[in-house]
Amino acid sequence: MDNRHAKNNKHISLNLNVRGIGQSPTLAINELSKKLSAKGMTIYRMGLGQSPFPVPNPVVESLKMHAHEKDYLNVKGLESLRQAVAHFHRQKDNVDIKPGNVLIGPGSKELMFILQLVYYGDLLLPTPSWVSYAPQAKIIGRNIKSIPTTFENKWRITPKELTEFLKTENDQFRPRLLILNYPSNPDGGTYSEDDLKKIANIARKHELIILSDEIYGQLHFRGKHVSIARFYPEGTIISSGLSKWCGAGGWRLGTFAFPPNFDWLMNAMAAVASETYTSVSAPIQFAAVRAFKGGILIERYLWHVRRILSFLADKSVRILRKANIRVQSPDGGFYLFLDFSPLSDKLNARGITNSTMLCENLLEETGVAILPGEAFLLPKEALVARLAFVNFDGAKALALSETIPLNEKLPEEFIDNCCFSVIKGMKLIADWANQ
Amino acid sequence: MDNRHAKNNKHISLNLNVRGIGQSPTLAINELSKKLSAKGMTIYRMGLGQSPFPVPNPVVESLKMHAHEKDYLNVKGLESLRQAVAHFHRQKDNVDIKPGNVLIGPGSKELMFILQLVYYGDLLLPTPSWVSYAPQAKIIGRNIKSIPTTFENKWRITPKELTEFLKTENDQFRPRLLILNYPSNPDGGTYSEDDLKKIANIARKHELIILSDEIYGQLHFRGKHVSIARFYPEGTIISSGLSKWCGAGGWRLGTFAFPPNFDWLMNAMAAVASETYTSVSAPIQFAAVRAFKGGILIERYLWHVRRILSFLADKSVRILRKANIRVQSPDGGFYLFLDFSPLSDKLNARGITNSTMLCENLLEETGVAILPGEAFLLPKEALVARLAFVNFDGAKALALSETIPLNEKLPEEFIDNCCFSVIKGMKLIADWANQ
Repeated sequence: MDNRHAKNNKHISLNLNVRGIGQSPTLAINELSKKLSAKGMTIYRMGLGQSPFPVPNPVVESLKMHAHEKDYLNVKGLESLRQAVAHFHRQKDNVDIKPGNVLIGPGSKELMFILQLVYYGDLLLPTPSWVSYAPQAKIIGRNIKSIPTTFENKWRITPKELTEFLKTENDQFRPRLLILNYPSNPDGGTYSEDDLKKIANIARKHELIILSDEIYGQLHFRGKHVSIARFYPEGTIISSGLSKWCGAGGWRLGTFAFPPNFDWLMNAMAAVASETYTSVSAPIQFAAVRAFKGGILIERYLWHVRRILSFLADKSVRILRKANIRVQSPDGGFYLFLDFSPLSDKLNARGITNSTMLCENLLEETGVAILPGEAFLLPKEALVARLAFVNFDGAKALALSETIPLNEKLPEEFIDNCCFSVIKGMKLIADWANQ
Repeated sequence: MDNRHAKNNKHISLNLNVRGIGQSPTLAINELSKKLSAKGMTIYRMGLGQSPFPVPNPVVESLKMHAHEKDYLNVKGLESLRQAVAHFHRQKDNVDIKPGNVLIGPGSKELMFILQLVYYGDLLLPTPSWVSYAPQAKIIGRNIKSIPTTFENKWRITPKELTEFLKTENDQFRPRLLILNYPSNPDGGTYSEDDLKKIANIARKHELIILSDEIYGQLHFRGKHVSIARFYPEGTIISSGLSKWCGAGGWRLGTFAFPPNFDWLMNAMAAVASETYTSVSAPIQFAAVRAFKGGILIERYLWHVRRILSFLADKSVRILRKANIRVQSPDGGFYLFLDFSPLSDKLNARGITNSTMLCENLLEETGVAILPGEAFLLPKEALVARLAFVNFDGAKALALSETIPLNEKLPEEFIDNCCFSVIKGMKLIADWANQ
């Protein structure tokens, strides 16, 4: 054991872009949760953004049927899956995607990383933003330019704000990648069709590439998701995957759909893919064909999921607003972004002056785990936090919902029957914040 | 379509380390194969290094049983899988690996990429070497220092050669990663226990980190694979996975086993993993537990596979040597590395002066697809090529082998019954080279 690596960590040789990453606020909350749980405390797990619903049955059956598939598949993806994904976008988004412009990856996160690695440009990031866009840019060494949004504008960038941001850039045709995520993580909000059109026009004028992260698209509560690719087809990459609408986060399958003239970018990504993940797991790709083909069974699943999530969002928002916590009604997905600023005097008096302290205190005192706004690139001192209302038995909720006709509202007793811990979590937050 | 990206590829903005990659000799051979196949030519697919054998039945059954698993798993891997992998290395390699030092990735290739990304050091690469180590370093921007080996030394670096190479470095304690791959791709050779001990001592003295790529370890024909981690446990990372010995290349599951004091490196890799692939597909990880746990069914599979591969290697080497092609007898795996230099006058006279021309001409004239030595980092003009003797029905071969007691040799008719195309490929190469 006379190797210098064995002695201590002082002399280790690590890429400086990587050194020190990983100690994210998310991790801190997870570790504290584990500690408290070990002490016997009931933890309300509203931190991790994982769909509570099972993978639809026909998709699981398809995985079983293809369990023996063992060949390395094409780096860009199984041909029948690329066809199914193109079909999905044509049918769901009314965007003319060709199978040849689809790239399959082990999660859309991996595809985003490779996109940032191969594309030599700045990252334009409306904030709050999902936790991984910025760390990816940091690892690779790209510039991150955040464009702040406000509660009043439902945490969306307005066309005016985007224009004004772009005016501040001296170099008008600098290569830039604008990431839009809608319905959004962390706030569940989406863009109006009108704003998407205006943003599309601005992007066209400035030749921005848009990475449109639509992983929550099919979880729009009214099934009315609109993609900006409809208005900027020549510059939009649509990102999607199985993780959210299909409940298969752990399966790791993401998709990119490129504009027709982006072969230069897709092929460079495929070249890196061939030196990294090689191809996505074969049995998973075969099963994903079934998911993206859709049909009545999948649609039924989606409508039940939407009804349940929308119902819970509505109940939760009411409880939180009554407690003077500002929160926008989400349009889709399973997140709420809570703004505790109306209670800042009270919280400050208790020594809580930033989002990390807010979440740590909340967790320690109530057992409710949510994530600090800091993790989503908001200023440390903003008293905001993301909550994922997913701490319920999704299989049971689906089974119950299926007994109630889709044109009816879910009854109040639905909560007690299967989603009690979600509402209990809201009440704990409300009481805690107003102590 | 007024976007500059749409017009042409002149003004695209790509990372210069990535621009132009992907047009590898491998790809060229694959494309030519497709063209010839479309014209009706019979292609002997000896290019791609994929196991011809099916995934063992208990492992496929385990995947079916876990098809419903949908949760995001821990970034470092499923706990029971990390235990099974540690157990595997303890049992198979006699190396004391702890579950906490195991990292699971979507293929060992992805883990190697992330290793090179996070570790800030040079890459020391005995050549010929597997096709992806160097391109990974190039994408990331690391220095590659190749250490040439010779046919006479069975394409292995000798302890003496390693020492001499290290003498040429002015900076004796420069951070460096030495990759050893044995049994090897592209030549099937392995190291003697004595050489491993000597190399281990040199590595210790110079504080090299060794990445020991043992993905073909279980395909050592006599089941006698020895890991260098036995002699340099404090500085060796063992790389393995399901792709080769378990026939599951398309499943994408690789493993790294770290020395006990390498948390600094493993944790940095896990941090990058959490911003890229997140975790390996859950159903695949559950199934992999069954594979790494091993047992009698898996052992029986391995011994039949070894007997078949060893038999084919032996027959093939005889045919090729008779034709004046130099080739070392492999110790394991499913590759032969052919050296056509004794025939160089004849080949030169036919206008064949480098390995790419050699492989293209061979393919066009005989339908046999093999890969040029250039792809393995040998000089372009060296008339060498890698052949993968995998173009046979592995399921049928296994079934036949199972009818013959393991202590017997396979009979001559085994070839005609299920591996005819392998031997036919050898004969075509032999005849073509001696025209």
